[in-house]
Parts: sequence; structure tokens; C-alpha cells
Amino acid sequence: MSDGNCQSDDISSLCVKKFKKCDQNENGVKESQLQLKDFVPSKILNNNTNRKIVCALGNFRDKSGEALVILEKNAFKEEELNEKGYFSEDSELRTFFQNDIYGNYVCFPNSSINGVKTTIIYPATDKHIAKYSQQESHIIQETPQLYEKFTSTHIEKEQFNLQWVYNILEGKSEQDRVVYDNKCEKEGFVLLPDLKWDGLTKETLYLLAIVRQRGIKSLRDLDGSHLLLLKRVRDEGKKAILDKYNVAGSQLRIYLHYQPSFYHLHVHFTYLKHEAPGIYAEKSHLLDTVIDNIEMMSNYYQKATLPFTIREMDTLFNVYETNGYIKRIKQNVELIDK
Amino acid sequence: MSDGNCQSDDISSLCVKKFKKCDQNENGVKESQLQLKDFVPSKILNNNTNRKIVCALGNFRDKSGEALVILEKNAFKEEELNEKGYFSEDSELRTFFQNDIYGNYVCFPNSSINGVKTTIIYPATDKHIAKYSQQESHIIQETPQLYEKFTSTHIEKEQFNLQWVYNILEGKSEQDRVVYDNKCEKEGFVLLPDLKWDGLTKETLYLLAIVRQRGIKSLRDLDGSHLLLLKRVRDEGKKAILDKYNVAGSQLRIYLHYQPSFYHLHVHFTYLKHEAPGIYAEKSHLLDTVIDNIEMMSNYYQKATLPFTIREMDTLFNVYETNGYIKRIKQNVELIDK
Repeated sequence: MSDGNCQSDDISSLCVKKFKKCDQNENGVKESQLQLKDFVPSKILNNNTNRKIVCALGNFRDKSGEALVILEKNAFKEEELNEKGYFSEDSELRTFFQNDIYGNYVCFPNSSINGVKTTIIYPATDKHIAKYSQQESHIIQETPQLYEKFTSTHIEKEQFNLQWVYNILEGKSEQDRVVYDNKCEKEGFVLLPDLKWDGLTKETLYLLAIVRQRGIKSLRDLDGSHLLLLKRVRDEGKKAILDKYNVAGSQLRIYLHYQPSFYHLHVHFTYLKHEAPGIYAEKSHLLDTVIDNIEMMSNYYQKATLPFTIREMDTLFNVYETNGYIKRIKQNVELIDK
Repeated sequence: MSDGNCQSDDISSLCVKKFKKCDQNENGVKESQLQLKDFVPSKILNNNTNRKIVCALGNFRDKSGEALVILEKNAFKEEELNEKGYFSEDSELRTFFQNDIYGNYVCFPNSSINGVKTTIIYPATDKHIAKYSQQESHIIQETPQLYEKFTSTHIEKEQFNLQWVYNILEGKSEQDRVVYDNKCEKEGFVLLPDLKWDGLTKETLYLLAIVRQRGIKSLRDLDGSHLLLLKRVRDEGKKAILDKYNVAGSQLRIYLHYQPSFYHLHVHFTYLKHEAPGIYAEKSHLLDTVIDNIEMMSNYYQKATLPFTIREMDTLFNVYETNGYIKRIKQNVELIDK
């Protein structure tokens, strides 16, 4: 599903492919004929102001076909933080303001440490362009009525293929990756590393618990009858991660996505300090809060209005658009109050 | 309070204080005597490679006392992405590798667009140093009982200084920054750009609504009696932002922090695509969800268990530690189930 980080994810996965190829062909590569001064941008497809990555679509003068230029500011390297780097005579400091012990400035360092990571894809296909395009996202406040009328119908109609999930649960695939397995059909679950995680680096720890019980599509279906299951996932999941990875339960972010990326109940476990994709308030629901809500009100998730974000490329967007709950204004969409 | 982004948060909240003072003293401020070439770093306290922010501890040559230098790469601005900026003759492109349609390069752009945001704190106290050092974070599940016993007592004891908030509400400072003002003492509020935002770039839009009613410390205090106030903030805030910045309400993330950085009720408005600091599920509560929860159960926030993250440097950490709810294991802490 969509979130603010998808572009970086895409760029990274693309980079992996490229780097691998590069290892093989490095010596045969010729110098670039492409020059940034010849690039004429036509549209900014994506500007991640947090990670400082921008993607521009355009073309190169006197060349046919479209091109993508992706720029990313580099992270600071420790070896630049010395008298030859940022703290050298070349670093010009312009004062923005200064007050008491605090000062805000702009520093213009030596250009040698000012490189910007640049990726050029040329010629770029429509698929590349779609991949790097940030789509307008909007929040939908899904009432129980809207869920029944549109979301639920959409889920049934799409009949998402869950065979890969059943293969894991039935021991037919990924068995070597399983970290913990509770085989109880009603309250058991399988815990395994998420595919985004290398399985080693504590800083980016990311595991997924997939429940054995079938037919629980999402948060929306949860009620008092699932409390034991949810507590097992929380408590046994925490313990398994402490045993295997030595990360305390209080250092874990344990949560469900709404909407989820597949409609078979699963719970995410990430390291609290890790800014994993999709951990935002409009998408993630902490398991402890879910349990607390159900304990206070057994049918909380059947009564609550649940927000979710949606992009134009999501098929669910079309459902809400066709039914008049979202309208496009210029290149934007806007929710209509009904 | 603490989260993966705490450093940014801290920098920003610090800026609030600075800007306030700055507003008053602007004309009296002299140019900086500090030069980066005189800075001798002794330790990198924190290096956020995701957001490209680094914090170095050290001292200035021939000056006594310690100093903090915080460097942050700037996000890309659309006006830099043209033939006068990144796509100009000045942009030197060095090929890292090139393969088929993909190429990876390093670009050295004109130094004028290569500014790095720089904050200097000098002299820095131990408190500053602790604040900018990366610390272990943990989630606490705050039951109503724990709130009454520890958090509430802590808030009263600390008696956070809210004079700067009252100055804004009373029109004594930052009046030129106010975007919208509803003067009703019970259900009114002031909307103004957060100091993390430049007030211009749509991509990083960030405003703050500060309610006029005093004594509402946080989410914990909210109940049915505040529904009108909360709906006003939501609806009038959305409208003011649409009118002034042309951003639709459905493209806004509207939320409260728990714990908040100051204990006078305020609501954050950020652009949905902007990964603002502290928007994670363990810290942010969407205003729509807050309203929905109170409508379902008037005393929801007095009955609910609310999670919050805590770092060792937070004074609240000591309260929970002293009372045996958190223990340190090696350099870690762990929640004790009681």
C-alpha cells in the first residue's frame, strides 16, 4: 500500500539492481554523454523533503524521449566533520539570526563535500515515470457505513490472492525464515522477518506476525472474540524477539496497518527507533491500543470511523471516486463532505 | 517528547524560544563572531542518515566552554530545479557508473544552492548536550492510574512555563505570523505557522492551532465538553488553510501529540505528503479519531491506556524509573510488567 516512503523504497530497490550489474561491468563503462545543463525539466514527479530526494521528469536537449533525473542530498559522513571538511576556512557562514546562546546560519562549505547523488534514467519508459511519480494522497474518514458500502464490497470483489500466505502457514514455503510458530489454529500465528529487513541489523528490525485463523480481513473485523489471539501475538511475539534478537518489548513498535497491504490479519513488529515505512498515525494502529479499545468496547472497530490514506493509483480510489466521495480538481482531488 | 525524530523536534522547539526572543531583539542582534573554521569537534552526538542531520559536540579555539554545531542538508526547492540551478552549466557531473538506461553520478552544483542549515549553541550546557545525544527510547503504556499517580503529578510539579503561549493568545507577540484568529474565549483558537516551517513551501506545510481556553493540558483532559472546540479547530483550521495556502482539507494530517511538548492544548496541521517529525503512531493522534472516540464514549481519554515514548533524558523517565516501572539493564531499560 501507499505511504510517504514508497519512492525512496523504489529508488533503493532499483539501486540494488543497478549496483549488482555495475559490479560486473564496471571496467567496460564509458563516460557519460549526458550533461545536466542539457536537461529541461517538465515536471517534478516527487519531492521528499524529509529524506531530501527529488525526482524530475524532462528531456535532454537534442535527444528524443523522456528522462528522469533523481537527486538526493548525501548523509553527513564523519570524515567530513573536521578541519578539512565543514570546519575548514572554506566554510562560509551567513547569519540568519543570533540570540543569546543560540544562532541560526547558512553554511556554504567547500564544493568538494557538496556532492549530490544523481541518478539518470534515459530513456525512461511510462513504467519508470509511474514508479517515480508521487500521486496526490488524501485521507478518507471511513465510517462503518462507507466500509460496508464500498470498502468491504471492493475487498470481496477483488478477491486478493492469499495463496502465498497460506503457503507460509501450511509450511510449504519460507519455512527456513520462521522465527516463531504457534500452531494453534484459533490463536496461533507465524512470526518471520519482513522482506524489507535483512534479518541482522538491529537498527532496522522488522518482523511480521501472520495469524493462523483465516477470514479476519483487517482491523475492521476485530472484536472481543479476538482478544486472546491478539494478546498471544503481542506477548509471544515480544518474547520470541527478545530471545532471538535481544530487543526488549518496550523498544518495539507493534502495530496493524489500515488499510493493510493484504487482507489476512497480520501484525508488524519494528524497532522503535527505526523510521520504517507506513508507521504514520494515519496508517498504523498500535496493537496495545487496539486491545485496549476492544476491552473498553467489544465492537469498537465495527463502530469507529477509521481513517485511511488513498492515492489515485489505488483501485479503491476509483470506487470512492465513482461513487462521488472524491472529486478531482485540476490535478488534485478533494473529499466532498456528504 | 521523544521519538525517532526527537532531534528535529528538539531543534524546532528550541527555535520557538529563539524566535520569540529574536522577534523582540531583532534589531539589536549583532553579526556572529563564531567561525566554523575555529570549531574543533570532539564527538558526533547524533547522525541521522535518513534526514541528513548531524550534531557535533566540540569547542571553539581560544574560547572556553563546549559548543554544539548542528548541520542539516536542505530539502530541494522547486525553484532550484531549472537552468539557473541544478541544470545549469555550473553543475559538474562525475560518473559513478553507467549501465544501459541507468546512470549513477555525483553532481557538484553551483555553491549558491548548496547551503547547509547550521545551528550553533554556544556555550552549551550539559542539558543541551543530553538533549542532542541519541538515547534509548521506550514505549510506556500509560493507564489512567499511572497518569494520575505519576504523569499528572509530574506535570503539576514541573509547572512548565507557558508565558510564551499566553503572549501569542494575548496578541503580545508573533501577531504578524497569525493566519487565523477566532477570539471566542471558550471555543476560539489562534492558527499560525509552526517555526519548523518557512511559511511558503507547500511541500513542508506545518501550522499550529493553539486553543484560547486555558487549563486543557493534553489529550488526557479532553471529553464531551470539548467537542465543539475540537470541531471548530478542525473545520475552521481546514478552511483557513484552504483559503490561504490552497491545500484541501483531505490533504492535511491534523493531529495531537501525546505527550505534547507543552501542556496547553494545541493541534498540528501538516501536509499529508510531508513526513514531519513525530507523526508516528506511538506519538500522534488524528483529531478526527479523537473526536470520533469522544463521540462514542465521552470519557474515552480518561479511561483509555495511552502509549507514549520516553527517553532516558526525559525527566518523566526518572519518575517512572524511581517508582519501579522501568529498569535499566546494561545500557538499556525495560518495562516491568506490574
